[in-house]
Amino acid sequence: MTRSIAQQAQLALLLEVATTPTPGNVDRRRDHDDLRFEQFLAGAVGVIDGLDALANPDGPPIGDAFEQAIEGMSDSANTNTQFGGLLLLAPLVRTAVTGDLTQERATAVAESTTVTDAEGFYRAFEHVEVAVADPPTDMDALDVRRGADAIPTLRERELSLYDVMARSTDRDGIAREWTGGFERTFDAADAIERREGPITDRSAEAFLDLLAAEPDPFVAINHGDEVAETVRERAAAAQEGVDPEELSDELVADGINPGTTADILAGGIFIALCRGVEV
Amino acid sequence: MTRSIAQQAQLALLLEVATTPTPGNVDRRRDHDDLRFEQFLAGAVGVIDGLDALANPDGPPIGDAFEQAIEGMSDSANTNTQFGGLLLLAPLVRTAVTGDLTQERATAVAESTTVTDAEGFYRAFEHVEVAVADPPTDMDALDVRRGADAIPTLRERELSLYDVMARSTDRDGIAREWTGGFERTFDAADAIERREGPITDRSAEAFLDLLAAEPDPFVAINHGDEVAETVRERAAAAQEGVDPEELSDELVADGINPGTTADILAGGIFIALCRGVEV
Repeated sequence: MTRSIAQQAQLALLLEVATTPTPGNVDRRRDHDDLRFEQFLAGAVGVIDGLDALANPDGPPIGDAFEQAIEGMSDSANTNTQFGGLLLLAPLVRTAVTGDLTQERATAVAESTTVTDAEGFYRAFEHVEVAVADPPTDMDALDVRRGADAIPTLRERELSLYDVMARSTDRDGIAREWTGGFERTFDAADAIERREGPITDRSAEAFLDLLAAEPDPFVAINHGDEVAETVRERAAAAQEGVDPEELSDELVADGINPGTTADILAGGIFIALCRGVEV
Repeated sequence: MTRSIAQQAQLALLLEVATTPTPGNVDRRRDHDDLRFEQFLAGAVGVIDGLDALANPDGPPIGDAFEQAIEGMSDSANTNTQFGGLLLLAPLVRTAVTGDLTQERATAVAESTTVTDAEGFYRAFEHVEVAVADPPTDMDALDVRRGADAIPTLRERELSLYDVMARSTDRDGIAREWTGGFERTFDAADAIERREGPITDRSAEAFLDLLAAEPDPFVAINHGDEVAETVRERAAAAQEGVDPEELSDELVADGINPGTTADILAGGIFIALCRGVEV
């Protein structure tokens, strides 16, 4: 197997959306009214130059490479398909290319980010529309929806990308991964590695584990904490034998998509592929 | 839309396998016992370096770039997923990168191939197992299953890749495209461009058109001419309103896969994408 690190990340994005069921999300069997499976394929095709930049230890800063990946995704898919997944993959790819892909080393990469990386992160929002929570009052000047307009504030306050993430953990599940040792992402990788059968079947079980363990922050942003908790409980019931296909159909019909859980699954698949799990 | 030519070809391979139903083939809704959807995703990830080489007008000969694509596909998918599609895409990609993608210009590219290209083509068979028909007696030394062992004969007889294709049209549908102006491939592109709706729905209709028009040569090789003709007739009935999903389920159950038709569809999708059809 001679896939490059960047190709492993690209394949992880493709395998995530091919995994079914991933209740509430676009998957191999389900589209949303405004977001179709094939747009995820197009998004994954468009990210490769950005992933190559991330997978080059002498390449541009993580934030710049991340922006490049988002621009390529958005150009190719004509919409936002994998923003969160790429934000999670960025430090993991940079970690994998310089040595072992461990929680410790990935955390060191995240902590080593600079103000320049934060600038790239904010510029990335100029290429897409992303649903995010309102920031706390003292962070208003750093609302990601400001895009590049937030850059002077970033510089003034000397905030690295890691600092920005650390200030977003309250509502953002990817930020929690960045600043919490990528715990859930590595758990998902372990679950995929431990199981048997086709990788997308293993991934479907890992998705349910993740969704049953914690309320999805993206659902919480869009539908409130109560709905997010209900979804978590229903995922736990599916683990106990209730048909997850039904849950999936209902969540899609109701427009409830646990997007952060899908992002974490993509990260977990990437780690599993790097460990040698076969397709 | 800023996808590179190579990325358009990669996306075409992904969209082909995402198209459903494509009766008898692996698609978004169906796996074969020995070939799963996600292996096609992995195959498509692995071909990009070969496609980049094809999309470089100053790059290696078409045959060498084709071999590179097949090697990458085989390494990543661990099986043969898109050999025929890549053989068809190779001259189309090289054509698109130097100017208009027309039947005339693609034919000129095919005709300009050399003995070196034929050598690359034969070497490609060393990376995969491909089901092919037995060659005529005078072509026995050039049986593709000989792989690189056929190279001395190629040189001795001064056969270009185009010459090899011209000697294989009897049983090989891709060879017929190479030497027949890529007629059916461009017809498929026209059909996709003409229709409306999601590109994978347009592609499903184009697949049925192709399958109903001519018996699939890959089915003929594996199951005989009579079965291939029956499949053609049933595709024609599906055009007239018989549910193609049923045909699809039956063909998959019987292990009958019209692989050449899928290859031609991939070529048609590539042309349609290059013409600006959106995902």
